[in-house]
Amino acid sequence: MSDIASDDINTWFAPDELALIRRRLPFVYVDVVPVRVDADGAIQNVAVLLRTPREESIQRALVSGRVMYHERIRDALARHLDKDLGPMALPRLPVSPVPFTVAEYFPTPGITPYHDPRQHAVSLAYIVPIDGDCSPRDDVLEISWLTPEEAVSPGIQAEMVGGHGALIRQALSHTGRVV
Amino acid sequence: MSDIASDDINTWFAPDELALIRRRLPFVYVDVVPVRVDADGAIQNVAVLLRTPREESIQRALVSGRVMYHERIRDALARHLDKDLGPMALPRLPVSPVPFTVAEYFPTPGITPYHDPRQHAVSLAYIVPIDGDCSPRDDVLEISWLTPEEAVSPGIQAEMVGGHGALIRQALSHTGRVV
Amino acid sequence: MSDIASDDINTWFAPDELALIRRRLPFVYVDVVPVRVDADGAIQNVAVLLRTPREESIQRALVSGRVMYHERIRDALARHLDKDLGPMALPRLPVSPVPFTVAEYFPTPGITPYHDPRQHAVSLAYIVPIDGDCSPRDDVLEISWLTPEEAVSPGIQAEMVGGHGALIRQALSHTGRVV
Amino acid sequence: MSDIASDDINTWFAPDELALIRRRLPFVYVDVVPVRVDADGAIQNVAVLLRTPREESIQRALVSGRVMYHERIRDALARHLDKDLGPMALPRLPVSPVPFTVAEYFPTPGITPYHDPRQHAVSLAYIVPIDGDCSPRDDVLEISWLTPEEAVSPGIQAEMVGGHGALIRQALSHTGRVV
Repeated sequence: MSDIASDDINTWFAPDELALIRRRLPFVYVDVVPVRVDADGAIQNVAVLLRTPREESIQRALVSGRVMYHERIRDALARHLDKDLGPMALPRLPVSPVPFTVAEYFPTPGITPYHDPRQHAVSLAYIVPIDGDCSPRDDVLEISWLTPEEAVSPGIQAEMVGGHGALIRQALSHTGRVV
Repeated sequence: MSDIASDDINTWFAPDELALIRRRLPFVYVDVVPVRVDADGAIQNVAVLLRTPREESIQRALVSGRVMYHERIRDALARHLDKDLGPMALPRLPVSPVPFTVAEYFPTPGITPYHDPRQHAVSLAYIVPIDGDCSPRDDVLEISWLTPEEAVSPGIQAEMVGGHGALIRQALSHTGRVV
Repeated sequence: MSDIASDDINTWFAPDELALIRRRLPFVYVDVVPVRVDADGAIQNVAVLLRTPREESIQRALVSGRVMYHERIRDALARHLDKDLGPMALPRLPVSPVPFTVAEYFPTPGITPYHDPRQHAVSLAYIVPIDGDCSPRDDVLEISWLTPEEAVSPGIQAEMVGGHGALIRQALSHTGRVV
Repeated sequence: MSDIASDDINTWFAPDELALIRRRLPFVYVDVVPVRVDADGAIQNVAVLLRTPREESIQRALVSGRVMYHERIRDALARHLDKDLGPMALPRLPVSPVPFTVAEYFPTPGITPYHDPRQHAVSLAYIVPIDGDCSPRDDVLEISWLTPEEAVSPGIQAEMVGGHGALIRQALSHTGRVV
């Protein structure tokens, strides 16, 4: 998932509580594929975040994060988009809560295309058009607006964390931009 | 469907050709539920058109119309939205071609919730947020922005043509505004 | 949610742990609308469970329950269907993980149509055709196969727990059986 | 589309009528990705039809065909599945009319991933699990049950007609079998 360096859940639970919960409960997440669309609604670009890696390799990710206690999905989407893309991004939040896919992240690789070594997360994934200007915040080093062809290229896909490359391919497939 | 007075298909076929085709082929249509959304993406209002009726009763309808030969669905959506809501409506066309429902209009009532005495039409239905200003054009007398509660009230529902009341209820249900 | 009497989460956590977590994390749930379909795939009946109530009033519910740690959604669906409808129900599990809606249950009523006084749960809702024979198990007193019209009647709707009546209406709306 | 040799529309219209209509109206189609699923609903195999080609090359296709006048989508699905897979196929028709994608076939290649040199067709695409036994009928020479990996292999994809390879990839992506 995208919370590589700044893991906000650390601030809500004591470390021993968190360790307990992470081995016993799945978390609710949202994943966002941020896109630029033309006047016809066709996708022109996909935003990919370059994050401060914990490890040495480059890691690219989508906007992603937990749904908090008593938080609506809409509010979680708005919060994570604001945190990662900045307050002027002007995202068009979805009118329906139905995701284009559900990504199941397991700590064990290979069960699904998604993997998160820290936890089990069930993530609702949405495509969100961005109308405004984005500015990297917190641990995001850079926001790259890639063409669909660039986003599915082997080089970029190899740099994406735990299944976010697969999510981009699924999002493009869902919109009829088959890959 | 909504083309109550201005039936553009009349201009493409001679009357005898049209009569022949209308009894032998289903038409491809698009239906649009135009909505105003707040910053969170939640629906605030639904646009309902008051059209010049052929008959004496008041008739309300959604944005709706045929897909023409060699026309993409996106282009048909843009064309019908422009025709009915005016050029300053700034609709947010969908990023995916997957409709929230498929409405099958039959000339025989009762097979589905949708009915069109003139023809068999298979219509892809989309929810489209409107950002700009709308002005009635052509045969549209008035555009009413109703709250979801008003739009599903018995009075308004009774004035909607051939199943468009059902489409509004389905659109709201799809977005979690259960009716 | 449906776990009115047999709350399996009690067996995984000590009471004080559970009290802690329930106030601080949303749970991942699945909801199922079990249906009988004819050869054309059209819904003939909806299964509604009559559960042993904690309180005095009658309570009807759908099949519903938590997704456990390291459990796939498919496996959670199979487990809860087996538990509530018996081992001979022969459910047709969905080929896609995309739910027909996402129900957000909050302990505070009125935020969404769904309510669970015990917890915040984010539930993926699926329509599942049942081919086999059902037998009530555990705390289920009776399984009623209602017609769509019966299922949305005011009497039945008033007996459904925390938004399950709304889920049935949304499921029928999604399939074109508009209510 | 799949009606390579047996084009049933020829029997409904005189040749000159058909030539007229094909240049002036889009047709309504259904496309089906027939699959074998395991008890969990996960796709094991995809059925691909080998048809008698008009031209010399081998051509593989999905189940596909027109929606007729006054025919429901459900009935069109049942009719084409029966015609191509035989009367013992026992398809599980979808409970909802919402397709997993809408394929727009244009006579001009390159506008979408789908292409039909004969006509413009708007096709609703469904994934349909098959429980029974299939037997090739009419112009179908062979029905191959391929694994998802085989179905997306370059060799098979190159033999698929007008975008049916893309439809298989989209169907698998929709079910979480990312390709």
